[in-house]
Amino acid sequence: MITEPLSPRPDRGGTATVGMVGAGQLARMTHQAAIALGIDLTVLSVDAEDPAVLAGAAHLCGDPDEVASLFALAEASDVVTFDHELVPNQHLEQLAAAGHQVRPNAVAKRVAQDKAFARSTLARADFPVPPFLVTDAGSSDAVEAFAREHGWPLVLKAPRGGYDGRGVEVVRDRAALAASPLAGSQTCWLLEAMVPIAVELAVLVARRPSGWWSTYPVVETVQEDGICRELVMPARIPVEVADRAAALAVSLAEGIDATGILAVEFFVTTDGELLVNEIAARPHNSGHATIDACQTSQFENHLRGILDWPLGATAMAAPAAATVNLLGPPGALDLRRGMPAALQDPAVHVHLYRKDPAPGRKLGHVTALADDADAALASARAAAAILVGR
Amino acid sequence: MITEPLSPRPDRGGTATVGMVGAGQLARMTHQAAIALGIDLTVLSVDAEDPAVLAGAAHLCGDPDEVASLFALAEASDVVTFDHELVPNQHLEQLAAAGHQVRPNAVAKRVAQDKAFARSTLARADFPVPPFLVTDAGSSDAVEAFAREHGWPLVLKAPRGGYDGRGVEVVRDRAALAASPLAGSQTCWLLEAMVPIAVELAVLVARRPSGWWSTYPVVETVQEDGICRELVMPARIPVEVADRAAALAVSLAEGIDATGILAVEFFVTTDGELLVNEIAARPHNSGHATIDACQTSQFENHLRGILDWPLGATAMAAPAAATVNLLGPPGALDLRRGMPAALQDPAVHVHLYRKDPAPGRKLGHVTALADDADAALASARAAAAILVGR
Repeated sequence: MITEPLSPRPDRGGTATVGMVGAGQLARMTHQAAIALGIDLTVLSVDAEDPAVLAGAAHLCGDPDEVASLFALAEASDVVTFDHELVPNQHLEQLAAAGHQVRPNAVAKRVAQDKAFARSTLARADFPVPPFLVTDAGSSDAVEAFAREHGWPLVLKAPRGGYDGRGVEVVRDRAALAASPLAGSQTCWLLEAMVPIAVELAVLVARRPSGWWSTYPVVETVQEDGICRELVMPARIPVEVADRAAALAVSLAEGIDATGILAVEFFVTTDGELLVNEIAARPHNSGHATIDACQTSQFENHLRGILDWPLGATAMAAPAAATVNLLGPPGALDLRRGMPAALQDPAVHVHLYRKDPAPGRKLGHVTALADDADAALASARAAAAILVGR
Repeated sequence: MITEPLSPRPDRGGTATVGMVGAGQLARMTHQAAIALGIDLTVLSVDAEDPAVLAGAAHLCGDPDEVASLFALAEASDVVTFDHELVPNQHLEQLAAAGHQVRPNAVAKRVAQDKAFARSTLARADFPVPPFLVTDAGSSDAVEAFAREHGWPLVLKAPRGGYDGRGVEVVRDRAALAASPLAGSQTCWLLEAMVPIAVELAVLVARRPSGWWSTYPVVETVQEDGICRELVMPARIPVEVADRAAALAVSLAEGIDATGILAVEFFVTTDGELLVNEIAARPHNSGHATIDACQTSQFENHLRGILDWPLGATAMAAPAAATVNLLGPPGALDLRRGMPAALQDPAVHVHLYRKDPAPGRKLGHVTALADDADAALASARAAAAILVGR
């Protein structure tokens, strides 16, 4: 439902118009990039106080579940893109069928939004993934066999709608499985072997419809309770591992004809095996260091990619960068109070999203540049601790 | 006169509010920096289609010549600052007297807005400046003596209101002087010896009310018809000259208690003498390369400076950078048409201001990073030529 008219946008030539479904922090930072490029970004927001709207992006208030909202956005835009996954795939197909440019396309979005579809698609195409089983109502024998083969614990994932650790559950044993949402469920679930993880990585690929692409330096991600806490760029891994991860991410982007930013998350197992974990077909938390640490941010390259403009250089501007997410602590928080103290270190860059504080909520991030990863991490952690009072 | 209410700005803690007088490209780029810092920027704009307003900054429509508009802005802001010089000084003194934070202060603004006052003030404080004479209605003998001492041509400058070469006239001889606006004028003019210029420089100092400061690498500026066309960072000059320019700029900033960005332009004469030319107490065209080439942009450091927050690192992210201003050509122009071709070089960054094209108008700029100045200049010039069809 559209509850507000489009903010006025005078026609003065010389601009491209992009519609972004979603108005969170990713849309907020995309708006910053759009300003330089002279691109008019219109966001589809649920709330007029969403982060991108507070940053001044033109907005339509509407529901991404409703096709009418999506059509209204598409009609105001040269290209439609996304700051989240939660858009019904059939709506995207309808938009494309009506002649609107939807980038990334519906297939890439489905791979990003449906973990079961992603695992099956990737496994069929011989990408390395953790051992998995897509269950349905009648698969109890298959589940039993899968557990026997891979042992406990297993990891149970809701195929859709999960984020920041939601929708993922570690199932310790047969009794826990019987008490899990899988038991007696009529819908499909993703069951995975629990692989022993040495380190987690993310590769960001920027890609154009015409096929040109570029990758960012591989990022090391530190997750805690399923939420990304810290990033280190470049990842502290052997160059062969980084090269193989980048090559896998590029061939995945090509395989699903991704456009704009595609973020591919990997597990490196304790045996040194590289396995594709999750995929996001949009700018991604794992790429936030690119704003301050790379010549062109992921947000600018997402816009350039979806418009089929040439991509900007992804090289780093410093030997190392670290990003720490600012997660809302329990209790009240006034982020501004900490700003002068947090910025005391001149290598620190703070990005605030202007979201209402709530425990565990991503309210901003801090990136620090340094000569090595340890120094960058120490700077970013110190500033983050000041800001969220950890 | 205030013709529009302040755009809505919900109170959600964690933010600082800054009011900026002016809504041109400098305010536009300041808004981009404000988004990351969680700062609410409100601009005082003449027109609801000014560049900063189109970028989504909250705005008040009003006239910077009217004290009521300035008070309305100040009442909505923790700190008042500027994207131009054209504000009556007595209004700023009134704001400060009423307890509003005006940064930079009225003295710094007067040095920046009144060339005759600046020359006299600097000369009294022993800063090197070109030989000059501040005229008034009765100074024809003094003018005669000045011309005898320094020879023709002389340079005649309107003390206030000039920019991009306007308000500056080269006076070839006595006859030209008699035909100039100086002749018979009842107001004050600035007459200067025409010094032989080898190169022009600019130094940007960021400074806090508490006295901390930081300088950016010295920039080489290329002027044509009084308009800045190109910048090279760092300037291709001996390190002693750069150090001396930086030291002069810092002591000037300290002398007038400047806050935020102070830009000091210098002539280097063919004899190697360093002379202070113009001063701007705000973010400045000569610092545009800082967005892409430095760890912290001049716009972010202006905000941090006026809020008395610690300043960000000014180190360069590449060995060399060049910026070329996009000046409107005669005839029609569609900047977007050239974007894909201009961005073909991945080292190029384009910034569009969304102003109506007009001949000679600054419509945007291109910055290129490279291993040396020549390569950076070649990239930036090529992209600019594509965009404005030169």
